[in-house]
Amino acid sequence: MTETQSGRVSILEVGPRDGLQNEPTPIDTATKLAFIEALAASGLGRIEATAFVHPHAVPQLADAAAVARGLPVDDSIEYSALVPNRTGLRRAIDAGVRRVAVFTAASETFARRNINMSIAESLAEFERVVADATGQGLTVRGYLSTCFVCPYEGEIAPDRVRAVASRLMDLGVDEIAISDTIGAAVPTDIVACLGEVLQDVPVERVALHLHDTYGTALANVCAALPLGITRFDASAGGLGGCPYAPGAAGNLATEDLVYLLERMGIATGVSLEGVFRASTIVANALGRRLPGKQYNRLRAAGGDAEPPA
Amino acid sequence: MTETQSGRVSILEVGPRDGLQNEPTPIDTATKLAFIEALAASGLGRIEATAFVHPHAVPQLADAAAVARGLPVDDSIEYSALVPNRTGLRRAIDAGVRRVAVFTAASETFARRNINMSIAESLAEFERVVADATGQGLTVRGYLSTCFVCPYEGEIAPDRVRAVASRLMDLGVDEIAISDTIGAAVPTDIVACLGEVLQDVPVERVALHLHDTYGTALANVCAALPLGITRFDASAGGLGGCPYAPGAAGNLATEDLVYLLERMGIATGVSLEGVFRASTIVANALGRRLPGKQYNRLRAAGGDAEPPA
Repeated sequence: MTETQSGRVSILEVGPRDGLQNEPTPIDTATKLAFIEALAASGLGRIEATAFVHPHAVPQLADAAAVARGLPVDDSIEYSALVPNRTGLRRAIDAGVRRVAVFTAASETFARRNINMSIAESLAEFERVVADATGQGLTVRGYLSTCFVCPYEGEIAPDRVRAVASRLMDLGVDEIAISDTIGAAVPTDIVACLGEVLQDVPVERVALHLHDTYGTALANVCAALPLGITRFDASAGGLGGCPYAPGAAGNLATEDLVYLLERMGIATGVSLEGVFRASTIVANALGRRLPGKQYNRLRAAGGDAEPPA
Repeated sequence: MTETQSGRVSILEVGPRDGLQNEPTPIDTATKLAFIEALAASGLGRIEATAFVHPHAVPQLADAAAVARGLPVDDSIEYSALVPNRTGLRRAIDAGVRRVAVFTAASETFARRNINMSIAESLAEFERVVADATGQGLTVRGYLSTCFVCPYEGEIAPDRVRAVASRLMDLGVDEIAISDTIGAAVPTDIVACLGEVLQDVPVERVALHLHDTYGTALANVCAALPLGITRFDASAGGLGGCPYAPGAAGNLATEDLVYLLERMGIATGVSLEGVFRASTIVANALGRRLPGKQYNRLRAAGGDAEPPA
């Protein structure tokens, strides 16, 4: 596969949003900001910092405005926030957010259960969100969840993913995150799905958002690289997985992705140890070990002392 | 990669040997035999049952003879045992073992520290072991450890691996397990190493023995499949990893390998749930959760009730 690999990959760190929203233990705003600062210091240039969702739905991110306002002023880092609708967009803009992400699904049932809208309704809402956001100079990413297997519907056909991805692109998002929400995909799934999606969406606008429930995330990254994919989402320490809750599982761990890519000769610009320091901040606050492999290796090697905050 | 995949893969279950020898908690012979019986019932046709090593060196396997004598009589299952030398071979033959495995390293330092012989000395000893074994109708596998990264020497060049693998083949082993002892390899390492080894060793005689320390094991399997590799070692539940010990890490979990391969359309003949039942027997005996992803998924889903033994 080496001949088709890109020489450089861009990692979007989603731990502060996708990771923390799935952690039952809430952590305070100052700790979140210390976590984000450490992530930025590790070389991660793109960080999804929070989500402007209803605080009753996701109490872990109820401090979204405070987090967004507290982000370090650094033009070299692209911070983003998830917004589910125009209300969330207004809150995000008020807090100074310059990049937002919208969120729909390739599975009709998952969309209805997760965002309480049909796919068509969500696209209609996002049409207005994207228009409002871009009208005010913001940029927009689109998440497309359950692109492989839906916990309610089972297998999702690649042409369904392509159809919704194509619609999202038409709305004006600049990037689509093809998401393996439950982490069930294997490399043949990646090839089949992206084979469809890339017929409508330019490869540089496609990101792969993987969870590592079944241990296949790095294999899936390796399946996507020869297709020209250069954008991957990951979460420090594999944050977001709760090993005691059925069905819950963490994102692909940022440290593990950095290790794989760098050893394969693909530059990330990210310090593995730097991400580990960030992971340690949030692990200490959560009071639990995170699931990432490199996190556990470094922690076992004695790296679990209080990190420089 | 689909065009070059084999339609069938053979898994060697190494949990009872490589797994248990790395678990600090000893378990009794009857439980080991129940574990092995459950592994065989899952469809695994090749099981490494124990090792005839010095009981002081590996007290966990001090009951090697009792395990070997207690194995279910079933000609459809190929049981094997590791032997470090002619003494071990004699004990194995006395206990009725019909297939043995010998063990050397691609790293000189690792060989000296792990088996207290230089590579040349180990090959000289194995020449006699293999001759004695094949002379009495046994078959022999050869393990070649530290084929990618050595914990003492660091990077191991692929041509060194090829040289030792070639010597092992000349001794008369029928299979060589190219082993990533510390689990540090990534797909580019697999391609580089096997590219060398396959110049001297027929592909059907090469097995890949992966540990999942860095989470790259399944990615490495996917890198090996297009090269024609059809033999993989794995350990039920990822047994052998101790999450609290620096540097220790489990084998690739059998359940995770079965999931990946079956979903990619590659038949294994193995029941994932059957392996999980076997893993549960040994996890209960060890009193800890095993690290495998599927093991944890099924356990969280309620599968941790006392299994049918």
